[in-house]
Formats: sequence, structure tokens, C-alpha cells
Amino acid sequence: MISENQSELIRDLHHVWHPCTQHKDYETTPPILIERAEGIYLQDRQGNRYMDVIASWWVNLFGHNHPRLNKALTQQLEKMAHVMFAGITHQPAIDLADSLVALSPSGLEKVFFSDNGSTAVEVALKMSLQYWQEKGESQKVQFAYLKGGYHGETLGALSVCGLEIFRGKFEKVLPSHLPVEGPDCFRCPYGLQRESCNAECFEPMEKALGENSDTLAGVIVEPLVQGAAGMMMYPPIYLKKLQTVCESLGIHMIFDEIAVAFGRTGSLFVCGAHDLRPTFLCLSKGITSGYLPLSATLTTDEIYSAFYGEYDDMKLFIHSHSYSANPLACAVANETLKMLTENNFLESLKPKIATLKECGKQFEGLNGEFRQTGMIAAVELVKNNKERHPFEKRIGYQVFLEGLKRGLFMRPLGDVVYFIPPLVISEAEIETMLNTAHDCINAVLR
Amino acid sequence: MISENQSELIRDLHHVWHPCTQHKDYETTPPILIERAEGIYLQDRQGNRYMDVIASWWVNLFGHNHPRLNKALTQQLEKMAHVMFAGITHQPAIDLADSLVALSPSGLEKVFFSDNGSTAVEVALKMSLQYWQEKGESQKVQFAYLKGGYHGETLGALSVCGLEIFRGKFEKVLPSHLPVEGPDCFRCPYGLQRESCNAECFEPMEKALGENSDTLAGVIVEPLVQGAAGMMMYPPIYLKKLQTVCESLGIHMIFDEIAVAFGRTGSLFVCGAHDLRPTFLCLSKGITSGYLPLSATLTTDEIYSAFYGEYDDMKLFIHSHSYSANPLACAVANETLKMLTENNFLESLKPKIATLKECGKQFEGLNGEFRQTGMIAAVELVKNNKERHPFEKRIGYQVFLEGLKRGLFMRPLGDVVYFIPPLVISEAEIETMLNTAHDCINAVLR
Repeated sequence: MISENQSELIRDLHHVWHPCTQHKDYETTPPILIERAEGIYLQDRQGNRYMDVIASWWVNLFGHNHPRLNKALTQQLEKMAHVMFAGITHQPAIDLADSLVALSPSGLEKVFFSDNGSTAVEVALKMSLQYWQEKGESQKVQFAYLKGGYHGETLGALSVCGLEIFRGKFEKVLPSHLPVEGPDCFRCPYGLQRESCNAECFEPMEKALGENSDTLAGVIVEPLVQGAAGMMMYPPIYLKKLQTVCESLGIHMIFDEIAVAFGRTGSLFVCGAHDLRPTFLCLSKGITSGYLPLSATLTTDEIYSAFYGEYDDMKLFIHSHSYSANPLACAVANETLKMLTENNFLESLKPKIATLKECGKQFEGLNGEFRQTGMIAAVELVKNNKERHPFEKRIGYQVFLEGLKRGLFMRPLGDVVYFIPPLVISEAEIETMLNTAHDCINAVLR
Repeated sequence: MISENQSELIRDLHHVWHPCTQHKDYETTPPILIERAEGIYLQDRQGNRYMDVIASWWVNLFGHNHPRLNKALTQQLEKMAHVMFAGITHQPAIDLADSLVALSPSGLEKVFFSDNGSTAVEVALKMSLQYWQEKGESQKVQFAYLKGGYHGETLGALSVCGLEIFRGKFEKVLPSHLPVEGPDCFRCPYGLQRESCNAECFEPMEKALGENSDTLAGVIVEPLVQGAAGMMMYPPIYLKKLQTVCESLGIHMIFDEIAVAFGRTGSLFVCGAHDLRPTFLCLSKGITSGYLPLSATLTTDEIYSAFYGEYDDMKLFIHSHSYSANPLACAVANETLKMLTENNFLESLKPKIATLKECGKQFEGLNGEFRQTGMIAAVELVKNNKERHPFEKRIGYQVFLEGLKRGLFMRPLGDVVYFIPPLVISEAEIETMLNTAHDCINAVLR
């Protein structure tokens, strides 16, 4: 006789197509049927608990089932779940736009809402393109991007994604943009250290921008951490150099902070922490602390004003999503921003970041690298000489399976085991997380 | 001294960039600050009420602030707002996938969740492309689409959108697909009537598909109503012919029912009502009855099985959004489907549809056309001989402004004034809606 859990998993198998999943893997390891979540823990129907080590795809900040976020949502629900956002506005969106502008670097003055990270990027790309057209520079239609860059998977966002695994099957329908060799600190071709280098690896980008400034509308980067590439981390000096060149050549700088904003690196925004002035700032994921889909694209008054004019001039930005600025999501986002900015919350991350660093030392004995940027950490597992393990060994996936046995829900990127826990994780829990992950890795490599 | 309302609108003006909006219009007509919504009415801060004639961009089915939908949301909230959807599953998503499969035409067996209509379309396009590659037909990379078609505004979705107003500024980064002259019943080049024709206008599509079947992956259409084109309505015989040709030539048929599903045309799905078997069915908007962003792409086991295999074969569909299958949105969607399918709800629409038809007769005296498909109706305003009014006159926008004075929130598409009210609108309210709209039109044209 099959259990209730099993019968639900069979229904799942029959009708659900999960994202980024080879369903044949479910023949041996079916998905976990998660029933509840509380704090940093997920609980399945049998009552087993799993630490949400990657914050449910890097979205959760304050833990699951948070009373303040729940209350913000239900209070808005009593007034209005949703209303359209053209010809109409509402308090939650006004407050959120106002807060995002106040908290982000000066110069970013306008906020365009959409539903997910991909659309936030698509909006930035489209605004940049149209801006140059309205300015009479219609030859500026290209975007530079890093070969390790990831910016979402709708076809426009994918066209500036450098990773073969995401774009390979769709090359034939992707417009051609400009891929550039980016920083790769673990395998630095200059033999330098990210803590002390001068971003010598900026050279190919400088060359690419210099040679293509006539046709380049913008350049898009994930600041400090290239997430999907395997949590590749690089120093802010690279971004400083990028800014200098972009400003001198008239190229828009698009910061995709979808994964790194809202405290992940220890600060609210990477651009703010390092005195950087992107033309576009894309936000999503943590914006609702992992409750609801929402994204925002921030930009300058200079961009906005290029779209401003008589209706007949048809300069307006024609882009919409039905649920733009969903009031429920905005209400949760407003509470999230309050929690991030009050009671010195970001200060409270400092000892956690130190604990993460300290506990990370145990990985030094392994072949590979432990790296960390604020509350994001990763262990890249390799053979000797930084050579990758054979793809078909699926080392990372084996580590994932070991994690399940030990109550950790991880999801390594290839052989990079990484940690993006909810920011409210305690120091003791950080220790448990890393010690357990270490056990998992040992169990696999042994 | 400025009022609280005015000061909020100034904050809006400073920091919010609204979708599909020329902000200069706000100098004379600022957005309405909507504070609450109840049933089919929106209420601003001053207490003015507006009938939500277009269901907040065609999303709302059961009215705002519905106790059952609110309850479904809060009950799920007590368990879990969100959890990632790879390696994990949850009851709300399983139930929703199961229901969508049960309620849609047989053959559609798998459900892939994403966040909005654009992404639902992107998923269908990407699945279709990859399917042909996995089958060894990698030359099939093109999509046919109607010149009046609209399928969203991310760049992939936009590449199969036929409307110049949406794609014009972005042509240079859009991959080239195959635009086809579609049905235009109001200005039928064959001089026929949509009620009695044999879809003679299918000829260009038949030709296009026949000549390009080697390279065509699929064809995408909005069944029965081309929404953004101005609620252009055409008969199901066109779709029957499309199906016959697609099946004989091996071309995927993608139905974008984002606007028309869930009762809008009087039935749950257009494909179901007309015995049509699309390869992909894209759903969003009404799926949560206007509460939260969510979308679904349904497809067949034939498609799914092409992606099934050993992990190393890398056939899996690599596409993800952080908030895929958001449990809160799925919970509301489940309740929405219950409400749509119980107590003969769809039957209850019949007298409303009849009232809409009856009241529509008052527009016969105007130059133009009143047209209707189920609960969707539209009045296209023209000069004599079906000639369009000059663009710069903005007749539709003037009608919108008259509507505001009279408590109707409309949003004409060009000079097409249309009605997609929440399905729970009463017959008396339908009369008020159309009579008032008639007054508005008269006030503008007089």
C-alpha cells in the first residue's frame, strides 16, 4: 500500500514539470514534499526538517513564516490584493519606489516594477536600447556581457547570459551581443589574488568596450558574485574600472543585483557600498524576502526624460505585465526594507560573516577553494591543479544527496557547493551548516 | 496647501515609472490613487468609486476582496509563503497541475509554472525549439505568428508579436520569425461575415506553413480574440483549419489563452470548448483571479518525453524562475478553479452574455463595430468607411477621460473601447457599464 506522501509524489510525477530538473533523477530521488516552513527550516510531510541552506533559490532573508511579513501581507489583503498599474497607482508601490530610491545610490531616481529577475533585466535592456534611439543614436544596439554572466532565461535576458549550459540549446534564436572574458579569480590567468590584485583581468573588457563603443548600448554584470557560474567572486576594483570606462565612452552600466542585493554581501546594495553609479539597477529575489514574485528596475532621470514628451511622439516605454507592482508583493517588500534598515540589522550580520569565514577554514584541506563575499560562501571542489572533476561523476549532486540525509537542502552548481542562507541564520546554525556540508563532501570524496 | 492625496501623487511622479504610460499625460490627468477594491469596484482615497471595467488588465474574475480567495491565501500563508521548486514540491502546485490537466483538453499532461504571461510564452517557445533539437530536427527554429498577435513583451515573446507599436523600437534585437496576415473580420478582405464565413482568410497562413514547414518549429495564436490588437475577434473555424495543417505538417500549435481562458469567452478554455488540441497552452492572468502573478505552460507527454533521459545527456529543460509555482499564488489559483467549476458557474454567465449582446445594440448607430465573444466585448470607433480616426485625436483616450468622470475605469486600445469585466458583474451592472460607456463615446464624438 502506498502512503499519502507517495501518492502525492505520483501525482507530481504525472503532471508537474519542474524547473531545471532532469525528471529521470526523480526515479531514484523524488522531490521532497515540503508542507510547512518556519525560520530557516523546511519541513516535509513526515516531519523531517531541512535547513534551507540556499534560501529557496536565494530569495529568503528573514526566514519562513515571519510574523511581520505575514502581517504586512494580510493587512494589505484586507484592502486590495491587486489593481492594474497604468492610469492607477497605490500606496504600497509609491512607498516601495520611494524607499528603493532613498536607499540606493543617488542618481537612481525612477523605479519600474515587474514580476521576476528575467523581466527586470529585459526592462533594463529595452530601456537602454530605446534611450539611444530617442537620442538619435540608433546604431547603439549591442550589449557587452561576461562569459560567466547569468541574467535570467527569457530569451532577451538569455542573450546576455554567457553560460553555455543555459543558452546552448537556444543559440539560433538569440540575438548576437558581445561576450567578454571576465574575472576568474580561482583560476586567475595573471596568477594574482582577488584580495590584492588591481583587476588586471579588466583588460579584455576595456578592449571590448573601447573597440565597440559606437555600437554598444550598455554592459551588464553581476556585481562581485557571478552566481549561476558557480559563485565566482571578484573584487570591487573591477567594477570601479568598468564605471570609469563606461562613463567616458557613453555606455550604460547595468547592474544585475538580483542575487546580491538586500544584505547578501553584507550591505544593502553592492553599488551603494562601493560608491558605484549604475545606469540601471535590477532587483528581485530578496526584495520580498522570499514571499512573492516581484522585481524592480531602477534608473536615472536622464534615462526617464528621454521617454518623456507628447503622446503623439510615441516616446513612451511600451512594456507591461498584468501584475506590475502587485500590491501584496509591494506591501511585503516594504516591510522587508523596514526590517533590513532598522535596529542596525546589517551590523548584526558582521559576526555571522566572521563565523562563516572562520568555519570555512575547515575546507582548506580539500582540493578546491572556499570563498566568501559577506553572507554568500562557496566551496569549489576540484581535482589536483584546479582541474574539474569529470562531469558525469556529478560530485555536486552526490553532495546534495548526502545533504538530504543530514537535513541540509543544498543545490550545488556543478561541483560548487554553496551557501546563501536566510540572513537570520544564527552563528551556531552557520557552524552546523558548514560542518554538516563538510561531512557531506567528505562522504562523497572519500 | 496640498492634500494628502496630492502629496502621494507627487511622490509617485518623482519615483514611479508606470507601464505603457506617457508620463506627460499625468501632468493633466494624474493616476488615480486607488486605496481599496471590493467586488467590481475600485475606490480612491477620496472615496470615489470606479467600476473595474477591464478587470485590472483582464485578470480579475470573481471581484476584488473575495472572502474565499482571501481565505485560501491566508490559510496557505500559515503554512508556507514560498519554497523553491526544484528538488522540492508542494501540495498547492501538485493540486493545481492536476486540476489544470483535468480541466484542459486531453493530451495536455504536463504543467510548467512561471510568473507571468510573457514567461509562459517564452517557456512554450523554448520547449518547442529544444524538442525539435532533441528529435534531430535542429533546422526547425522559426515560429509563425499573426500580424495582429500579441504574446507579451520580453524579447522572446515580443519576437512573435506582430504589432508594430510594441516591437517597433526593438526590431534590431529581435530574432526574425514569420509574420502572417491573420483574420481581420471587421475589415474582411473577402467581404464575408465572421458568423457565416469559412475562414477564407486562413489562406495566407496555409501558404506560409506549407512553404516553411521544414524550418517552422511552431505557430502561435491568441484563440478567438486578438486582445492587444484591439479585441479583434474571429471564428473558431480558423483554428480548426490551423490544427489540421499543423498536425499534417508537424508544426507545434501554441495557444496563448492568457487573456481568453477561465470563463472570458464563456468556457473554461477555448481549446476545450472547440475540441482543439494545442501542443502548448499558455495560461496566466485569470489563473489567480487577479490576485497574484502566476502562469502555466501546459504541454503533452510527447514533448515532455523528448527531455527525459540520463542527466549526462543534458536533455533537461534548463529554465527557471526563483518564484516558480509560488505556493501562495497556487493556493489562490486552486480556489479560483474550484469557484469556476462548481455550482454551474459557467452556466451562470449565459444570461450575462445575453445582456451584453442586448445592450451592445445601442452602439449600432455609431460608425464602427460592436463585437462580442462571451464576456468580452468591444466597440471599435471609426470614421465613415471603416477608416480610422486620426491617431493624434486620441479618441479612445478621450473616452477613457469621460469614463473617469462617470465612474468607469476603461482603457481603450487606440480607438477600441472594450469591456472585460470581472465575471461576477451583474446583469444590471452590465447595463450600466454599456450605457455609461455609450454616454462617454457620445460626449467625445459629439
